[in-house]
Amino acid sequence: MASSASVLRLLLGRPLANREHNERKLSPFEAVPAMGLDALGSSSYGPEAALTILIPLGAAGLAYIGFVMVPIIALLALLYVSYRQTVRAYPVNGGGYNVAKQNLGPIASLVAAAALMVDYVLNVAVGISAGVGALTSAVPALHPYTLELCLAILIVVTVLNLRGTLDAGRVLAVPTYVFVASAIAVLAIGVYKTIVAGGHPSPVVAPAPLAQASTTAAAATWLLLRSFAAGCTAMTGVEAVSDGVSAFREPVVKNAHVTLGMICAMLAVLLAGIAYLCHAYGIGAMDQTQDGYQSVVSQVTGAVVGRGWLYYVVVGTVLIVLCLSANTSFVDFPRLCRMVAQDNYLPRAFALAGRRLVFSVGILYLALTSGLLLVIFAGITDRLIPLFAIGAFTTFTISQTGLVVHWRRELGHSKSNGEKRQHRIRLVLNAAGALGTGLALVVILLAKFTEGAWIVVLVIPCVIVLLKTVHSYYAELDSALRQPGPLDVRKSLPPIVVVATEGWNRLSDKALEFALSLLPDVIAVHLSKLKGPDQESDDRALRRRWAEEVERPARAARLKPPRLIVVPASYRRIEVPLLQLVDRLRNENPQRTVAVLVPEVVKRSWWQHLLHTHRARRLRKALRKYGGPGMVVMNIPWYLDPPRIEEALTPEERRATPPVRNIRISRTRRRRGAQSRTTRMRTE
Amino acid sequence: MASSASVLRLLLGRPLANREHNERKLSPFEAVPAMGLDALGSSSYGPEAALTILIPLGAAGLAYIGFVMVPIIALLALLYVSYRQTVRAYPVNGGGYNVAKQNLGPIASLVAAAALMVDYVLNVAVGISAGVGALTSAVPALHPYTLELCLAILIVVTVLNLRGTLDAGRVLAVPTYVFVASAIAVLAIGVYKTIVAGGHPSPVVAPAPLAQASTTAAAATWLLLRSFAAGCTAMTGVEAVSDGVSAFREPVVKNAHVTLGMICAMLAVLLAGIAYLCHAYGIGAMDQTQDGYQSVVSQVTGAVVGRGWLYYVVVGTVLIVLCLSANTSFVDFPRLCRMVAQDNYLPRAFALAGRRLVFSVGILYLALTSGLLLVIFAGITDRLIPLFAIGAFTTFTISQTGLVVHWRRELGHSKSNGEKRQHRIRLVLNAAGALGTGLALVVILLAKFTEGAWIVVLVIPCVIVLLKTVHSYYAELDSALRQPGPLDVRKSLPPIVVVATEGWNRLSDKALEFALSLLPDVIAVHLSKLKGPDQESDDRALRRRWAEEVERPARAARLKPPRLIVVPASYRRIEVPLLQLVDRLRNENPQRTVAVLVPEVVKRSWWQHLLHTHRARRLRKALRKYGGPGMVVMNIPWYLDPPRIEEALTPEERRATPPVRNIRISRTRRRRGAQSRTTRMRTE
Repeated sequence: MASSASVLRLLLGRPLANREHNERKLSPFEAVPAMGLDALGSSSYGPEAALTILIPLGAAGLAYIGFVMVPIIALLALLYVSYRQTVRAYPVNGGGYNVAKQNLGPIASLVAAAALMVDYVLNVAVGISAGVGALTSAVPALHPYTLELCLAILIVVTVLNLRGTLDAGRVLAVPTYVFVASAIAVLAIGVYKTIVAGGHPSPVVAPAPLAQASTTAAAATWLLLRSFAAGCTAMTGVEAVSDGVSAFREPVVKNAHVTLGMICAMLAVLLAGIAYLCHAYGIGAMDQTQDGYQSVVSQVTGAVVGRGWLYYVVVGTVLIVLCLSANTSFVDFPRLCRMVAQDNYLPRAFALAGRRLVFSVGILYLALTSGLLLVIFAGITDRLIPLFAIGAFTTFTISQTGLVVHWRRELGHSKSNGEKRQHRIRLVLNAAGALGTGLALVVILLAKFTEGAWIVVLVIPCVIVLLKTVHSYYAELDSALRQPGPLDVRKSLPPIVVVATEGWNRLSDKALEFALSLLPDVIAVHLSKLKGPDQESDDRALRRRWAEEVERPARAARLKPPRLIVVPASYRRIEVPLLQLVDRLRNENPQRTVAVLVPEVVKRSWWQHLLHTHRARRLRKALRKYGGPGMVVMNIPWYLDPPRIEEALTPEERRATPPVRNIRISRTRRRRGAQSRTTRMRTE
Repeated sequence: MASSASVLRLLLGRPLANREHNERKLSPFEAVPAMGLDALGSSSYGPEAALTILIPLGAAGLAYIGFVMVPIIALLALLYVSYRQTVRAYPVNGGGYNVAKQNLGPIASLVAAAALMVDYVLNVAVGISAGVGALTSAVPALHPYTLELCLAILIVVTVLNLRGTLDAGRVLAVPTYVFVASAIAVLAIGVYKTIVAGGHPSPVVAPAPLAQASTTAAAATWLLLRSFAAGCTAMTGVEAVSDGVSAFREPVVKNAHVTLGMICAMLAVLLAGIAYLCHAYGIGAMDQTQDGYQSVVSQVTGAVVGRGWLYYVVVGTVLIVLCLSANTSFVDFPRLCRMVAQDNYLPRAFALAGRRLVFSVGILYLALTSGLLLVIFAGITDRLIPLFAIGAFTTFTISQTGLVVHWRRELGHSKSNGEKRQHRIRLVLNAAGALGTGLALVVILLAKFTEGAWIVVLVIPCVIVLLKTVHSYYAELDSALRQPGPLDVRKSLPPIVVVATEGWNRLSDKALEFALSLLPDVIAVHLSKLKGPDQESDDRALRRRWAEEVERPARAARLKPPRLIVVPASYRRIEVPLLQLVDRLRNENPQRTVAVLVPEVVKRSWWQHLLHTHRARRLRKALRKYGGPGMVVMNIPWYLDPPRIEEALTPEERRATPPVRNIRISRTRRRRGAQSRTTRMRTE
């Protein structure tokens, strides 16, 4: 136990006290890496996903990349405008779940929550697998270890998030800005070279030859739709700013707007630049399952600047940015789960802060499910992409629709005509956003359905059913537990005390003494597993000892001597006769509680558990599970070497001042019952 | 839970009641299979083990088989005579552990116990692997599955023993007697053919050609000693009769003598016959690790009668007898462990009768360790043989030495001269037995030491140290727990009651009501995980509700209102401030017990465990482990749907009549303390 605690301490750091919780407020410069990584990272796999769909068209397919990328960038612009409104309307928490809850009711909010959860899990898997894809492009020797690398990165990201250190934007800033700067530099050089070469630049490192066209132009429209759907994955993560508005410095809304603008602008430049250069250099996507695979970003950079230092900066930072884009999920998923858990739709453990004040259960759950996805899909980005973006676009649509409802309501409340006009414009903008993302969602669903999107279409309703099941359990529990008004002290009758033991020694003596100090009606139960003649002789010896060592001193102390009952366990399960006795006592004395005292040797090391038979534990467990509401289990611990309180505390807790001071217990006051008799005994 | 219970029921049968324990007494006819299987089964691998050592001598080695087998049969005769004495001297329990305990003291008895335990484990592994060896000789296609077959047979034998059904000799009788009869028939035919052919019979199925001699005759003496040591494995199991004398019908000693005689005679005939025919037909051992392996019994039978029905009867019954010889261990090992556990040298769980009245822990432990051995040695008999027989011969020697001591003592007590002479003869016979087995043990140790016997020489002392460690723990525990005389009722002061909870609802109300029904000094502890301004507003609301809903009704009922303490858990571990509070209360009131009430929602299905945060369980556990001797934990269970007692019972327990009748609790009697106040309240 001590060693597992010290391993935890090494991995996760010392536990943090509640007062150490202190969310640092972000400036836009810090917020872009903290919130934009997901979006910026997707610039590396979005275009690639679109181009992968176009592989069957061969070289001809590249001519169509513009048809795919222009609507995507237009949609991005629409999203930017829409989310500006969201930030303005919900400057505290503009996440899809909350917006839907406020405006569209619980069902819509659960759809948003389920869709977001699914997409957060996918984002981790896609981000890490795309990052590893970038790495194996640069170092092909690592290609056979794709899955192992993915899982190793997942574990590192999980541990870092359990430590809670990556929350800060500053840590993320360096790789993010280096990536954006170097990538834009490469794109700029490429565009310049293309223009200089009159539209047909010669690559420094030749990209892989394009496949032969294997489909006719007639199928191209459908391919273009599918390519658009795949490219939409580049837009996931744009909603992150609206989720975390509360983390911004004052002026909150302005800072959020600046951040959102920067993210969208950088993303648009990256998408447009990559698409343009792919066309100019004749670069297509390659099959990730094949050896010698090169990511599109790697091919573009190689073609433009060769495999010099800039190439390795771009590829290196892409790897880092993608892995860190998984981090966006690790920040947002546990927060979303906490909100949902606080609304009683998820187990309450999701709302508990762990040793480092992060929501550890959510983090671990995210790591487990995304790890499972990585294993199932063997760490191949292309296989995960078809499942991706559906959740994000569902949330986009629900969130924008919620804002339409919001502005309509505001419109009703607005007083001046100027305000009315403003609200009307906002309503139209968000309606356009809802329509655009809704349309995109339909296209994505249709285009990707048979490729894997059906999985998500199945999973989201299942998640919703699960959430509602959890909610109805808590509703039942809460209605059963709800405070019924003032305490009812009148119904308290004194309990009947049953002392249960298998052998009579100092342990059971202690239990009996405690029982007699509480109440007069004490029944001692000797649980016997013996049989036949052994039992009878044993019984007789026991009764003789009982008369001498218990009844006599009790009578001498003017206490009612406890009764001894011997019950055999015919099937060696000593809990059974005890349960039957409790049941009988309860039925015969319905107004009284039955308190069962179980004396127990406390085991403090693992090897002690091997040497004891755990009968007390079995008794406790059975009594708790089947004893019924009129019963109370009392545990009398007995220690071979008594523990010190310090053993239970972590070093931090030992240093902290104990929270409780000044408890005065009336020392002179005595109970009037058995106690008064005891006091009398003493003075006699 | 229900399904795992029904799987157990299917595998092991219904639980047996104590009264169903009824050991059937055995006649010699039943006792030979029940106790002699181990010995008879070893006739098939003993000669083979001896011959395996002689392989390097090639055909010349066969000439020496007589030099090896004659001393073995002589030693067997000596053992027969010695154990006749043991049975006479200890007609209840003549096992090596008991004889050593009675005559030589605890150390010798522990050596005997450890040696026996090691040999029982080895016997299971050797028996099963030799049985599978016999099977793969007959069906060579099964050879690659040697280990799998071994483990499958082990599992079947284990389950049958957990059911407790194989205990009866009658089940074992058929294969045992068929094996002995058919094997002796084959041997008789073989001997007849040899004599008719003038000592050089021609085999029906030619045995495998013998290997070339690869060693010189000079090395032969050492090889012969090693061969003798290997052949001694044939004698293991002879002690079984002395272990189980109590199982015989009257007249016990005579029946035991007859059984012992039958077993030894049959074993001697088998050993002599196999050795003779091996010599006559030129049959040597083969390497079990090679494909095409044939056991010696298989080769002899094939050579004598060909591969007809008799061959398959012999090989088939050898397989069964060997697997069943493992069963002898399964019967004796748990009984030995139980005796050792009753003397506090093994964990007490070894002395507990399971659902079928067998000592399940011992059976499972034996299955696990022998399974591990089979896996480590890949189910190859030859690799296991060098470890075998050391334990048995150690026990033989200790047991015979113990009897020498016994007869010396008897000699001192004997009155008539006739008795004296008798005892003197017995003493000499047992001394000869001790000397013979002791010498054999030395030879075995020397001959096998480097081949694996060193493992056993290391393991036995380790086992002894383990046994003594267990004993000293129990000794410490028992001396700490020993009954100190009459109950000390005077020191019982009423406890301070602490009600611990995180939220106030019907659950905590129930706990408070129970606390107030017990005692006046009630402290309610609100364990808080909140921080900063949240906590303060929460605290204020709580105190307001407390004043209104708890203090007011308590005062109205003329009870001392319970105090409310709010303690924050700085590190979210709510058990810490509670432990600190208990510690403080204890230090300030050293004469009073602190009773901590923990209300708890009882979870009755697995999914409920996922939905609750288990704080009550963590509280309970921490309090029990670190609360110290002056503290008692009280569990107030709360049920969403109250359980019925029937759910805790098996069908058999439901049908049985409950063991407790006639418990009268004085219904009119009231406690004088809080209760009298309550009653007053009512009448007002």
